[in-house]
Amino acid sequence: MENTLFTVNNVWMMICTALVFLMHLGFSLLEIGLTRQKNTINILFKNVFIISIGMVLYALVGFNLMYPGTFINGVLPDYFINLFGLSVPENGLTAEYASGGYTYWTDFLFQGMFAATAATIVSGAVAERVKLGSFMIFTIFYVGLVYPITGSWKWGGGWLNDLGFYDFAGSTLVHSVGGWAALIAVWLLGARIGKFKKDGTIGAIPGHNIPLATAGVFILWLGWFGFNGGSVLSADPGKTSLVLVTTCLAAASGGLAAFLVSLLRHKQYDLSMFLNGLLGGLVGITAGADIMGVTDAIVIGSIAGALIVLGVGFVDRLKLDDPVGAIAVHLVCGVWGTLAVGIFGDLAGWEQLGKQAIGIVAIGAFCIIASFTILGILKKTVGIRVSEEEEQEGLDIHEHGMDAYPDFRLNQH
Amino acid sequence: MENTLFTVNNVWMMICTALVFLMHLGFSLLEIGLTRQKNTINILFKNVFIISIGMVLYALVGFNLMYPGTFINGVLPDYFINLFGLSVPENGLTAEYASGGYTYWTDFLFQGMFAATAATIVSGAVAERVKLGSFMIFTIFYVGLVYPITGSWKWGGGWLNDLGFYDFAGSTLVHSVGGWAALIAVWLLGARIGKFKKDGTIGAIPGHNIPLATAGVFILWLGWFGFNGGSVLSADPGKTSLVLVTTCLAAASGGLAAFLVSLLRHKQYDLSMFLNGLLGGLVGITAGADIMGVTDAIVIGSIAGALIVLGVGFVDRLKLDDPVGAIAVHLVCGVWGTLAVGIFGDLAGWEQLGKQAIGIVAIGAFCIIASFTILGILKKTVGIRVSEEEEQEGLDIHEHGMDAYPDFRLNQH
Amino acid sequence: MENTLFTVNNVWMMICTALVFLMHLGFSLLEIGLTRQKNTINILFKNVFIISIGMVLYALVGFNLMYPGTFINGVLPDYFINLFGLSVPENGLTAEYASGGYTYWTDFLFQGMFAATAATIVSGAVAERVKLGSFMIFTIFYVGLVYPITGSWKWGGGWLNDLGFYDFAGSTLVHSVGGWAALIAVWLLGARIGKFKKDGTIGAIPGHNIPLATAGVFILWLGWFGFNGGSVLSADPGKTSLVLVTTCLAAASGGLAAFLVSLLRHKQYDLSMFLNGLLGGLVGITAGADIMGVTDAIVIGSIAGALIVLGVGFVDRLKLDDPVGAIAVHLVCGVWGTLAVGIFGDLAGWEQLGKQAIGIVAIGAFCIIASFTILGILKKTVGIRVSEEEEQEGLDIHEHGMDAYPDFRLNQH
Repeated sequence: MENTLFTVNNVWMMICTALVFLMHLGFSLLEIGLTRQKNTINILFKNVFIISIGMVLYALVGFNLMYPGTFINGVLPDYFINLFGLSVPENGLTAEYASGGYTYWTDFLFQGMFAATAATIVSGAVAERVKLGSFMIFTIFYVGLVYPITGSWKWGGGWLNDLGFYDFAGSTLVHSVGGWAALIAVWLLGARIGKFKKDGTIGAIPGHNIPLATAGVFILWLGWFGFNGGSVLSADPGKTSLVLVTTCLAAASGGLAAFLVSLLRHKQYDLSMFLNGLLGGLVGITAGADIMGVTDAIVIGSIAGALIVLGVGFVDRLKLDDPVGAIAVHLVCGVWGTLAVGIFGDLAGWEQLGKQAIGIVAIGAFCIIASFTILGILKKTVGIRVSEEEEQEGLDIHEHGMDAYPDFRLNQH
Repeated sequence: MENTLFTVNNVWMMICTALVFLMHLGFSLLEIGLTRQKNTINILFKNVFIISIGMVLYALVGFNLMYPGTFINGVLPDYFINLFGLSVPENGLTAEYASGGYTYWTDFLFQGMFAATAATIVSGAVAERVKLGSFMIFTIFYVGLVYPITGSWKWGGGWLNDLGFYDFAGSTLVHSVGGWAALIAVWLLGARIGKFKKDGTIGAIPGHNIPLATAGVFILWLGWFGFNGGSVLSADPGKTSLVLVTTCLAAASGGLAAFLVSLLRHKQYDLSMFLNGLLGGLVGITAGADIMGVTDAIVIGSIAGALIVLGVGFVDRLKLDDPVGAIAVHLVCGVWGTLAVGIFGDLAGWEQLGKQAIGIVAIGAFCIIASFTILGILKKTVGIRVSEEEEQEGLDIHEHGMDAYPDFRLNQH
Repeated sequence: MENTLFTVNNVWMMICTALVFLMHLGFSLLEIGLTRQKNTINILFKNVFIISIGMVLYALVGFNLMYPGTFINGVLPDYFINLFGLSVPENGLTAEYASGGYTYWTDFLFQGMFAATAATIVSGAVAERVKLGSFMIFTIFYVGLVYPITGSWKWGGGWLNDLGFYDFAGSTLVHSVGGWAALIAVWLLGARIGKFKKDGTIGAIPGHNIPLATAGVFILWLGWFGFNGGSVLSADPGKTSLVLVTTCLAAASGGLAAFLVSLLRHKQYDLSMFLNGLLGGLVGITAGADIMGVTDAIVIGSIAGALIVLGVGFVDRLKLDDPVGAIAVHLVCGVWGTLAVGIFGDLAGWEQLGKQAIGIVAIGAFCIIASFTILGILKKTVGIRVSEEEEQEGLDIHEHGMDAYPDFRLNQH
């Protein structure tokens, strides 16, 4: 591998890493924008905690766990060969490492940014009532152990990879992994006070800062340039540029489809649905962004957008309270995108569809069990939900002793 | 063309594409920041719609229309050779395509981001009273047809290109194209209620969120690194870095000049003028960013900044209501920047100045006619302006059924 | 030097330049977020002014002053060889310039973005009571003269460089240079009304928009990818990627440490401390980001985070009023990071520690004298502090005649 090409590849991967890092700002703004001002500090705190602890844990444990030298029975990575955190392998800074795509350090940082994303997805779903300390403990286990183990099955060269399961940038490995935990967490936590009324109607709890939510979505879309573009693992011109095209077209189609479906159903130009449709399109294309054509991307994105509208309604009818629509965006569209690899594009076929289904079910089962175990234990011991008084008055004052906007006069609700 | 250099060029162009994409967040924040909170959702909706429909339309129609194989009489691109949207030409992913600057996919995506920009410029000018559905129809025609046709005249290799008209990154082809439509739209729409009073005075309608407007300008400036830097169409070190220097110095000079001129005229440190001066400097340098020296850039930017202050005042005196100053920024400074190519830098001379004027007039005439036709038909049929009641109460509640900031207490006006 | 590698290096440096540019948005949002809404326009104005005047001054004076051909007695750069601003040297656009790292234009722009940063740091510390005109004059001298002179001692090849002082990306040369001026300015200005009460207690003056402050910190962290990553001065894969890893781990550790220390001391999850801890970690790693290992970075960042909590408290006890914590972040952690080069990593040793101390003291002394002189003269002549009435009512209305959020109902205080 030529030295200059190695340098180019590494530059591209570092930029993609920076863009994926920025997604944590996108998630932060989206989550606070779609919830109430009284819980803003709390949500921001969770998000800066997640990226910080995520980076440190990935250095200490996660990276070696996810990309092990060997597997025990092909399932549990043999972590013990690398117990003491990061240490650069002999060829780690040369083109011999990672097929000349990047250095060991870039590898670690890019993957570390992905790891923290999984917990961020959960953060939105549990907003406005989760106990901060418990969420932090959950994050430590989920980012430090669960994500790297399921990740190792495919990207670490484990059994799902051997099987032929395909997940380019993580519709399943990142988004569904976060989505399943969001689902379990929302179910164990229960709905926010006032969401599901005794008469069976659903109370609207509007987000308090839609401009910041919209900015968050734009930033997430930008971040996806790195999330998907970097998953090529090199700067290969044809592949990276195709990936950016399919990613952007799926996002655009997802937004347009969600807006049109919600216009037909609710006779209103619904900005929240447009935004979540954009995200749904992005999650949906993620599993196959490198193997789809233009039309495939538009169709996959459009279906993802429609699924958002249906999914948000369905979650509501299940009496699950997901303030930001994380389950519809990351779980429903994550599953859809993973299946789409068997339906559209270069790998389409029944056999591949079967493999995709196996991956979805296996990882889903592991994530459900793991998050149910972690959150269940926390619920039985320290508790996972704040007191009713704290929820009513806001987590910001109770857990953080500060207001997000002290100079503004606020409505009480 | 060597393969590695092709990869570098393509990486640079993909990054520039991402930066131009981010300009849509910049425009969104600027536009909502400089208008009232009651129309915030509406403006955000328009902006996410524009980038989404813009991408899809550019895939289906615009790209082939703008970069055709042949022209009918040198003016109308012969679109019919490419009726079915994107399909990669034989050399589209190799260094044979686009002189080794980038792949076909990068080409499409970079140009697609530009296309959507033209409509975004209009969005700001028509804010707070345009009917959403009509604006969406206008956008479809303007992004899908008008922009690609005028673009084909120069960048597609049409008659203005043959003539020797120079427009490096689009002072005319992007900014004036948006600016002319903004002018026509503002004229056809009429002023917002309360802007021009019966006694002849001008009512101030202050923007509701200046921090977000300022953030928008910073993001737009960042985006211009890609807008101008990417218009080199390769990563050529000397050219790209010169372009970034002239771009940044013109921006800085534009801001300083606008602030100083407005300080002299109005005895106040006017942040809005500073911000629009920065943008004016950016638009002004765009036509010749690759052929100007340091001093040229500072002079062009400074004049652009001064033109902003004069332009905003002039538009007001014409009783045209442009809430964000889009006409001064994109049209006045777009024209100025295009003329500046004949006055400063490598191409300066009377002959070039004449060619620049021809380009300005020809594209201006086409855009005026096109936008007058589209908007005129819409005005006569479905209407382009919301009802007085809706304007007074805000478009957010009427068209979207939601508030941008429901937790905050708001002033009524 | 091969041409393609030169192109890659230059691309990386241009991207890093763009990221450092974006730090000015980060600082803007952080500073307004941590202060009161009545001074928001004023702070934004200062920040757009700093980047604008900074760019222009660096073109006219600073760049040649900082990177001179020769020195007078090794201390004062012989500026007169280059009195007329920028002019490209013969090899300025080829790989012969700057060891093939980048072109002359990229060199100027990257360094220019750094120069403006020093004044931005001061901006936060003096917020809410400094007289705008005086601050602008101070900025002109500090960015135009002081920063380039101290910078020339090390990065321009002056006496500190000859001595063996090490400061990779500017813990001292950028952050402390800003931090010392912040210290002097805060002392000369005095505290805001209501900060230190007559009974000896400290009045809390909470920031008005914590979401924007948090966004600012995320953006600053992103900017540090360019600030430190670009300070490699090429795209060298091993070095740049190591620098990004140490930078991110130090940031994460700094945030976590500050949060934990403040949790122990104040029994609250303090988001402000977390945010300033992240920044402290970033400033702390900056002097040695390229010569530290993973563990070093985590330890340096953690100590920086702890120093933030102690530093903020210490500044308060000195009755110095620093609204955003700039002294703790940029001065305390800047000194810490510079010393850390003698304690951890490749250069660790008593001799190096001594050299680091000499650099800190020499630059500190020069900055203290320079800022005391500039600000002292301004204080004796035009004054540096606004009237009590203006401070109470807010600088926005008095100096700018506009509100940051006119549509929102605000608390008076």
